[in-house]
Amino acid sequence: MSVIGEQGPYVLIVRCPDRKGIVAAVSTYLAKHDASITESNHFNDALNNLFFMRTVFRADGVDFPDLDALKEGFAPIGRQYDMHWELHDLSVRPKVVIAVSKFGHCLYDLLHRQRSGSLRMDIPAVVSNHDDMRSFVEWSGIPYHHLPVTKGNKDAQEAQFTKIIQDSGANLVVLARYMQILSPEFCEVLSGRCINIHHSFLPSFKGAKPYHQAHERGVKIIGATAHFVTNVLDEGPIIEQDIQRVDHSHTPEDLVDMGRDVECAVLARAVRWQLEHRIIMDGSRTVIFK
Amino acid sequence: MSVIGEQGPYVLIVRCPDRKGIVAAVSTYLAKHDASITESNHFNDALNNLFFMRTVFRADGVDFPDLDALKEGFAPIGRQYDMHWELHDLSVRPKVVIAVSKFGHCLYDLLHRQRSGSLRMDIPAVVSNHDDMRSFVEWSGIPYHHLPVTKGNKDAQEAQFTKIIQDSGANLVVLARYMQILSPEFCEVLSGRCINIHHSFLPSFKGAKPYHQAHERGVKIIGATAHFVTNVLDEGPIIEQDIQRVDHSHTPEDLVDMGRDVECAVLARAVRWQLEHRIIMDGSRTVIFK
Amino acid sequence: MSVIGEQGPYVLIVRCPDRKGIVAAVSTYLAKHDASITESNHFNDALNNLFFMRTVFRADGVDFPDLDALKEGFAPIGRQYDMHWELHDLSVRPKVVIAVSKFGHCLYDLLHRQRSGSLRMDIPAVVSNHDDMRSFVEWSGIPYHHLPVTKGNKDAQEAQFTKIIQDSGANLVVLARYMQILSPEFCEVLSGRCINIHHSFLPSFKGAKPYHQAHERGVKIIGATAHFVTNVLDEGPIIEQDIQRVDHSHTPEDLVDMGRDVECAVLARAVRWQLEHRIIMDGSRTVIFK
Amino acid sequence: MSVIGEQGPYVLIVRCPDRKGIVAAVSTYLAKHDASITESNHFNDALNNLFFMRTVFRADGVDFPDLDALKEGFAPIGRQYDMHWELHDLSVRPKVVIAVSKFGHCLYDLLHRQRSGSLRMDIPAVVSNHDDMRSFVEWSGIPYHHLPVTKGNKDAQEAQFTKIIQDSGANLVVLARYMQILSPEFCEVLSGRCINIHHSFLPSFKGAKPYHQAHERGVKIIGATAHFVTNVLDEGPIIEQDIQRVDHSHTPEDLVDMGRDVECAVLARAVRWQLEHRIIMDGSRTVIFK
Repeated sequence: MSVIGEQGPYVLIVRCPDRKGIVAAVSTYLAKHDASITESNHFNDALNNLFFMRTVFRADGVDFPDLDALKEGFAPIGRQYDMHWELHDLSVRPKVVIAVSKFGHCLYDLLHRQRSGSLRMDIPAVVSNHDDMRSFVEWSGIPYHHLPVTKGNKDAQEAQFTKIIQDSGANLVVLARYMQILSPEFCEVLSGRCINIHHSFLPSFKGAKPYHQAHERGVKIIGATAHFVTNVLDEGPIIEQDIQRVDHSHTPEDLVDMGRDVECAVLARAVRWQLEHRIIMDGSRTVIFK
Repeated sequence: MSVIGEQGPYVLIVRCPDRKGIVAAVSTYLAKHDASITESNHFNDALNNLFFMRTVFRADGVDFPDLDALKEGFAPIGRQYDMHWELHDLSVRPKVVIAVSKFGHCLYDLLHRQRSGSLRMDIPAVVSNHDDMRSFVEWSGIPYHHLPVTKGNKDAQEAQFTKIIQDSGANLVVLARYMQILSPEFCEVLSGRCINIHHSFLPSFKGAKPYHQAHERGVKIIGATAHFVTNVLDEGPIIEQDIQRVDHSHTPEDLVDMGRDVECAVLARAVRWQLEHRIIMDGSRTVIFK
Repeated sequence: MSVIGEQGPYVLIVRCPDRKGIVAAVSTYLAKHDASITESNHFNDALNNLFFMRTVFRADGVDFPDLDALKEGFAPIGRQYDMHWELHDLSVRPKVVIAVSKFGHCLYDLLHRQRSGSLRMDIPAVVSNHDDMRSFVEWSGIPYHHLPVTKGNKDAQEAQFTKIIQDSGANLVVLARYMQILSPEFCEVLSGRCINIHHSFLPSFKGAKPYHQAHERGVKIIGATAHFVTNVLDEGPIIEQDIQRVDHSHTPEDLVDMGRDVECAVLARAVRWQLEHRIIMDGSRTVIFK
Repeated sequence: MSVIGEQGPYVLIVRCPDRKGIVAAVSTYLAKHDASITESNHFNDALNNLFFMRTVFRADGVDFPDLDALKEGFAPIGRQYDMHWELHDLSVRPKVVIAVSKFGHCLYDLLHRQRSGSLRMDIPAVVSNHDDMRSFVEWSGIPYHHLPVTKGNKDAQEAQFTKIIQDSGANLVVLARYMQILSPEFCEVLSGRCINIHHSFLPSFKGAKPYHQAHERGVKIIGATAHFVTNVLDEGPIIEQDIQRVDHSHTPEDLVDMGRDVECAVLARAVRWQLEHRIIMDGSRTVIFK
């Protein structure tokens, strides 16, 4: 990854209809404004005639403007090529709210990666419907919000959760084994800025107890899937998947235990890519520039 | 694997209710008859209270009997412990009939493994609903049976196929990308002695065009599954699976191409294990002693 | 794994010259004493004519004796077959001392696995030549011993380390990225009961800065290796290895970061197998019954 | 991959000192000449201040010139930025000479990939120091050159081999388990246009009998490495590596057998990338745009 400074590097994300000259237009704009490209990825989706680009650049001369001026100057190019585009300063640390229930492995993993500098983010809040993870979270210096779910309080609980997200200014919500069915309204709130980890190799074994389903079917490989939250459970765009080989000797409980490492790894990669603006939506699929 | 002689080594396969003393009874019987164990695997399925064992042994003394006498002597132990058991001479080469359609990669792979000695089997016949693979098969010295499928001839075609299996004395039929829906009657014929390769990571993407389904869903990993044929399409007991990482840049056609290697590898492993009597059925699951 | 009770299950480890009748002798002994085998693995090393066995069993009747009586009764069989053998009660939690320097990822990982019940062990002490990990270790309720290494104090420091091992009654010492060259004398103390994680795919890139060596050579895959400590640096018997794919875009620092997950995973598996008595030495190689 | 036409698509390969404006210069040149970019990859090697680019484009308008004119027009840009650059028509099938000894698995694999259209190349000759593979090669319609090596004829044999390469107009030579030490002079001939498969995970186990070395060391993972041939044996720039997990039960002969699949897969990927001009040298390392 590019070296982070006090300001910059900067990242430009583009999705637009594929046409001749887009790269020339963008790269000429950057070169004119004393920006040096340090990383660049393109994808031409020929099936849908779409173009995707992620370009990282740094200030490299006196004519480099500030972020607002850079955006302003780029706007006409965006309009010309009918772009969806974003421009971010990678030195600004994203704010991430994490939700967890009783299984703490993904939470532990994310917090350690954050502490060690491996994941570059601030964590203004951890939310849970249980109180089990309070001690570790508070030792880590992060506020812990215990929002229990009872019969009849789901709406109120989700309203509290929503308020925490809003008050924290979160850029991203991560459901790190948060074992609650979300209401369509709350899914709407989270849509486009929330990553969930599902403990199966989707689309196999949607819904509850996927490891038990996997054992029942006698599969030889289990997996985990990180995906964006949409309003259809376990149907959101897939960001990352990985697998673990198993055999006949493993009980469903063994699968639960063995799957933890895969869940941690898959979720951590998905979160990292989102923090680094490496993911662009392509309908119900994701383009990921690693 | 154990060294193959003119006779032996021998392999004993056992499945029975789990009870105290089974291993003692079997190993004492073998030791008394001058059999030396060279490989042994056990599995206690605590969920279903079943015991599985695969034991390879060789003659090691004057009191070692021939295979028939060995079986006869073992029968009372089998009855005592309510065993399903089999006893095979591993020096006898199994006969395998292979079926293929237009995609030849799995067929090529199996034939080369057979030629190089990596897969120990005889191939008395290759059956196909197309004529494309004739040249390579005949160069390999194997009879090629072109059994085209047309509207209305399905029953007759399957009858011809069945006759080839019977006449050849096949121990195993391998569907190496044989792209035909089999009738329930033919499935019945094949049941328990036929391995199919399905080009998806089951239970995801059953049925037709699994790579196109996978592309549509935007998965990040594709796979292949070797399974026993039963009368429910793509629902037979899974023998082996493996995967291949893909990304947004791959078209459905790319997935088809990339998946070939996984299909070959998965099918070859499943066939090898069956040839070496490493697979024991456990309901709809497989116990595999690698 | 077998279900742990207040006493048992028990595990018997055997290594001896390969001869006819060993399995019969052991399994008959167990069956006579009302022991039910729940897990069993054998390996016949034909190259060296050695036999290895790991058998897990539980009390299953009134004639099952206590551990001491079981050992006493087994001793003649051990002598008859010239066995190296061990018999352990798996309900007894092993004591593990962990050493760490500044990189905490393996330590974090091991402690979380221990807390979550995934690794069954007690940790009487963490030793470090730095003070960085004190807070997390003490939050975990484990005594932290800061034993700094300075010019000239190496002998004294290793003596202190040795005393902690002895006082704690440790069954195992784990060097979880403990970045110190150990003296031959200290290696002798640790020999046979100490696991180290080396951050390369041994035997490639022994010694210092393996990720930088790997970058320099332009490898496409990096790895990590858990091995027993002997008196030759990075030459001890290998227990486990795993790998991570890399490419030209990764700097040496990226490799350091990416390698952490592999190091954690490899070390955790090696420790688990040792705790469960799954590892038997075979000269400079390890037999591992997973 | 891009769709191949009768002419084009075209691929431009660039390596040069990293400077501001390179992408702008190249992409503007292409856009001006009615070339539409369909695939593009960049890499900024910050450690060595080098820039690498692979850009695939197709004719997309009346102003698109022929290949020679395209090259001529690009030359000034190449000089301005001090580029090493190449421009190829991907519709031209590269010519590949393959060398083999007695182990035919990689040869079989490459020839089948070529037949099935998976590898896009012509094979004007197969060279071998043995006659074993003649039948399969000739069945495939490819001339087979048996050039035996005897005491004292090495120079003459290499001269014959060199002549075959020259006469065939080969763009690439693939040593597909060609088990001969090459003279420095012949290495010089092959340098930069020859890929070798070594049956170990380099830099581990250079030289002879790597699987036996691996067994002796007790590694838990074996591998294979495809690399460019230089005049130092097994030290050439690495193109691709992959691995296979093994355990204590595998003999050296098992490793030889298990390693074959990895060798085939690794070599096939390396050859494909070279055919598609995806590899650019970066000193003793390779930049590979997959």
